[in-house]
Amino acid sequence: MPIVTFQPGNVTVDAAPGAGLWEAARAAGLSVETPCGGRGVCGKCLARVESGSVEFKDTGVMPRGMAEQGSVLLCLAKVGDGPATVRLAPQLREEQGQFIRESDDRTLVDAALLPAAEDLEPLVRMLALEVAEPQAGDGLSDYDRLERAVKAKLGAQRMELPVPLLRALPEALRRDGGRVTAAYRLTDGAARIVSLKPRDETGRNFGVAVDIGTTTVAVQLIDLGRGEALASKTAYNAQIECGLDVISRINYARKPERLEELRSKVLGTINALIAELAEASGVDVGCILAASVAGNTTMTHLLMGIPPEYIRLEPYTPAVYRLPELRAWEVGIGIVPEGVVYLAPAVGSYVGGDITSGLMCTSLATDSEDVCLFIDIGTNGEIVLGNGEFLMGCACSAGPAFEGGGLDCGMRASAGAVEWAEVDGQTGLPRCSVIGGSKPAGICGSGMISLLANLFETGWLDAAGKLDRVRPCAAIEASGRQARYVLARSDESAAGREIYVTENDIGNVIRAKAAIFSACRVMLRKLGMDFGDLSQMVIAGGFGRYLDAGRARLIGLMPALPQEKLKFIGNSSLTGAYMALVSEKHRLKKDELAGKITYIDLAVEPEYMDEYTAALFLPHTDASLFRRQ
Amino acid sequence: MPIVTFQPGNVTVDAAPGAGLWEAARAAGLSVETPCGGRGVCGKCLARVESGSVEFKDTGVMPRGMAEQGSVLLCLAKVGDGPATVRLAPQLREEQGQFIRESDDRTLVDAALLPAAEDLEPLVRMLALEVAEPQAGDGLSDYDRLERAVKAKLGAQRMELPVPLLRALPEALRRDGGRVTAAYRLTDGAARIVSLKPRDETGRNFGVAVDIGTTTVAVQLIDLGRGEALASKTAYNAQIECGLDVISRINYARKPERLEELRSKVLGTINALIAELAEASGVDVGCILAASVAGNTTMTHLLMGIPPEYIRLEPYTPAVYRLPELRAWEVGIGIVPEGVVYLAPAVGSYVGGDITSGLMCTSLATDSEDVCLFIDIGTNGEIVLGNGEFLMGCACSAGPAFEGGGLDCGMRASAGAVEWAEVDGQTGLPRCSVIGGSKPAGICGSGMISLLANLFETGWLDAAGKLDRVRPCAAIEASGRQARYVLARSDESAAGREIYVTENDIGNVIRAKAAIFSACRVMLRKLGMDFGDLSQMVIAGGFGRYLDAGRARLIGLMPALPQEKLKFIGNSSLTGAYMALVSEKHRLKKDELAGKITYIDLAVEPEYMDEYTAALFLPHTDASLFRRQ
Repeated sequence: MPIVTFQPGNVTVDAAPGAGLWEAARAAGLSVETPCGGRGVCGKCLARVESGSVEFKDTGVMPRGMAEQGSVLLCLAKVGDGPATVRLAPQLREEQGQFIRESDDRTLVDAALLPAAEDLEPLVRMLALEVAEPQAGDGLSDYDRLERAVKAKLGAQRMELPVPLLRALPEALRRDGGRVTAAYRLTDGAARIVSLKPRDETGRNFGVAVDIGTTTVAVQLIDLGRGEALASKTAYNAQIECGLDVISRINYARKPERLEELRSKVLGTINALIAELAEASGVDVGCILAASVAGNTTMTHLLMGIPPEYIRLEPYTPAVYRLPELRAWEVGIGIVPEGVVYLAPAVGSYVGGDITSGLMCTSLATDSEDVCLFIDIGTNGEIVLGNGEFLMGCACSAGPAFEGGGLDCGMRASAGAVEWAEVDGQTGLPRCSVIGGSKPAGICGSGMISLLANLFETGWLDAAGKLDRVRPCAAIEASGRQARYVLARSDESAAGREIYVTENDIGNVIRAKAAIFSACRVMLRKLGMDFGDLSQMVIAGGFGRYLDAGRARLIGLMPALPQEKLKFIGNSSLTGAYMALVSEKHRLKKDELAGKITYIDLAVEPEYMDEYTAALFLPHTDASLFRRQ
Repeated sequence: MPIVTFQPGNVTVDAAPGAGLWEAARAAGLSVETPCGGRGVCGKCLARVESGSVEFKDTGVMPRGMAEQGSVLLCLAKVGDGPATVRLAPQLREEQGQFIRESDDRTLVDAALLPAAEDLEPLVRMLALEVAEPQAGDGLSDYDRLERAVKAKLGAQRMELPVPLLRALPEALRRDGGRVTAAYRLTDGAARIVSLKPRDETGRNFGVAVDIGTTTVAVQLIDLGRGEALASKTAYNAQIECGLDVISRINYARKPERLEELRSKVLGTINALIAELAEASGVDVGCILAASVAGNTTMTHLLMGIPPEYIRLEPYTPAVYRLPELRAWEVGIGIVPEGVVYLAPAVGSYVGGDITSGLMCTSLATDSEDVCLFIDIGTNGEIVLGNGEFLMGCACSAGPAFEGGGLDCGMRASAGAVEWAEVDGQTGLPRCSVIGGSKPAGICGSGMISLLANLFETGWLDAAGKLDRVRPCAAIEASGRQARYVLARSDESAAGREIYVTENDIGNVIRAKAAIFSACRVMLRKLGMDFGDLSQMVIAGGFGRYLDAGRARLIGLMPALPQEKLKFIGNSSLTGAYMALVSEKHRLKKDELAGKITYIDLAVEPEYMDEYTAALFLPHTDASLFRRQ
């Protein structure tokens, strides 16, 4: 039988020709996740054939050009006739149990929207320089000679050299006869130097994309030289303990020391993620030179330590929508201190940089005339309706339920989370799918959606969100006015305690979906449209790694639309931040989008409250909206 | 008799018509210094007649226009026929013994060289703004509205708002309906905001001029709105304990922690002076928005924490000659953190910003074709020879003797310093003039020059710098190979110990004057010139408040030149820093001068050492050079 060798680690296994490569890897004792169930859809089991033969047919889920370079999806690839060597992507392995891979949502976004190789122009670029050596009588200081070299090489009008780099300049220029690598940011004819390194480090140029959600923070480490993601990681925003939603954070921030506390907490979360990603990928934090950050307007104010008070007070005017490019130390982000930080521009008090960033992942960022509805489901739900010509945006308060926040056993969509569940119609007992395949530790947003839909479909949950207390069911425990549904007993759970969902949790999810659905209706009606008029409905959010549209429809989160009109793109704010990090063209496009959005304040739309009330049922008081067409 | 009232303090005194106003002030118990002996030359006893009649004839020593506005010199003014009220300048009073006035050397500089009223364009300017109030639906953040107001008012292309000011922006704009005072620096179409204050503070705009000498640091507090000096103060550079001259400081700075120590020490000296000046003048440090700094190349490197190592190593290439404008926090200067810091540009390793700054106080900064020799006597002596068309500069190591450094009883030219001394030809006993009129606490540079000249003239000192041990003299004490000259016994001194000068001290002064005189000779000879060809010889330095040219000639520091060709301009580095602080025209001129100077390295001039050796006598081996013509 052909021998397949897996790298790194040189793990070999005998496999029959035609056998699945995924099975071969598992037989070799390697832990390879296939969250989509091996359908070649999620793109998580990417690998590269280094030698030998492997059968593989590209389904189009991989970024373009990768199949030609030998990349395959393990779940669809088959062992060939002879031996082969296959290299697993680093993020596919759990390294010494320290690093849990999380999703790279880019694979969910249309490849045509992502920066192509020719667009690659990262926020910070590298330049190999030969600076003239010091000469008696030429009247040129170290600074002068560096400036000449930079101007000549970049055609820049002037150079800006931060004081800390000036302090290191005499040694840097004398270490290797004037041969240095300068990292720089070129804007308006000014080349600002971000770092000066020895000559051989031209390739060592990394950046981070950061999405600051009210509940969840996501960070992705990027190789800027290649525009490739090395790894991603999420964590709860440490500000959570100071309030679950933006209004409570704004209230908390009214005292200066508490504003500083919030700033420090979110920086703690971001910087811990950066440090963990860097360590896991073997990247020196001193080589991370740029950050592209997206967050809602309140999160951006809190990150910068700017009082957010007037966001929630009439006439709802934030201190700033569009920040200039900043240096990492000005923000407090834990990369190279002089590194460049780009913050996605906001549009309104409640339509922030996360949305302008997310729009980049939709046809709304193109010239398309097709009308598209973009929904970003987070602690706030933000909705943008439009096409290549006009954009109209609004926001509603969904609460953190879709991110696992405010639920007794809620958790983020990371290892240990129940991300999908179904219920036996007869017994009412659950069957769960857990991220990472281990015992469950909690339930995430997509798990909640699938569970509620299935409970409702099988009659164990009624339209008002109450569990059935009449039919005997081992999973339903009633105590007084509250009942709960048990997904795992304590001996079945990774947390060592019962994993369950209360009626209160269910109510939170219903309010969340009602807020979002009714906001969509109001927006559409303003243009005299209905869901049927949409070319596409794009849903973003970090609440799960894939969304079952059928089940989302069952609970009334999404209307009945043909499958091809629905698209789930994961954390689009993070993906949009990635785009701005690696491509000047995409940065400019994002700034342009921000200028195009007309902001609608739902609070002054009289029909919104009626729509919301009508949506507080499963699926809705008007169930016809959700009947499959 | 007419009553004269002195302000502030409302002190009244009866005085006879025609009596000196100075005597009247002293009779009123006020301490008014007249270091020039009441000859109307030094300009230190400036006052303003607020009402009533006073007789006064302007001698031209005051800045132009001041006499018309009622300013007088107390020493020349006489009580009139009726009552009068006279306001003393704040720096003329010793306030609760806390604040000792030091000299404002500007009065020594040609008024035509100082910025005129129409040149007044300080480094940071104030702008009264009315920013639109927040409006629902206008899509403008606080930042956007401020930017619009600033752009409209200044015609700027863009605004830069530092993050700390952005944090304070929401409150600043809502305190008084959008009425604010912005301090700003406008360069290349960009208006950088330095502070945002309540509307009524338009006039509160101060700056500091700073001269960082190797031995002495001088700071002057300026009202930027009027371009007027409020007070000046000097202190020894706290770096002194790490080495007396630039070479020893450079050696000390070779370890990073020691470089940081030197940086921190000089900042300590500067910031203490700023704080003392601000307190004494009743100025809030938060209203000091700009600093103009001049120092030699090594001092500038140490201030910025830049390793100065390569200044002293071939090919003597500093890290930087010309720094961009910086913010106060980047340098560490204790004014408003976002305040603007301008550093005078340097020309060579040993011709620094103090010299480009000092040149501003001479005809070398004009179009004049007359050849002028400019000498700045500090721990290094710097010499520039030229006219409006060409400039040639060099430096020599004089040591700190002229600033009182390295002398047993040396001190700066401040209160308590013997600034002038003469010797009785018969008895050899001294008669001293002390700054402030109190008991002596030490001797400063001008005191040393006058004392040595008079000792030499009266025969108590020989040409080799040895005191007479043969003739009996109560002031000369010999012990072994060393003799010393006693100026004051312990019970006559403010220091509670003997004040004296040793033969070693005398040797230091001789070496210092030899270094400077021989450098002048070498420079002149390079152009085939001699002292007689000069139109003017301008001497600068903080070593005393006035220099007796005759006595300087007697010891061989200066050649025999007609009195009118000699000019002493005090601390010209500080005065030049003042000019750059208040006038854009003068800033540009200073930058232009830096580009014009050809730097000569004396170390490679073979004749310099011969010249120096020949000058190690009083006055010189060739005494004919110093014979009065």
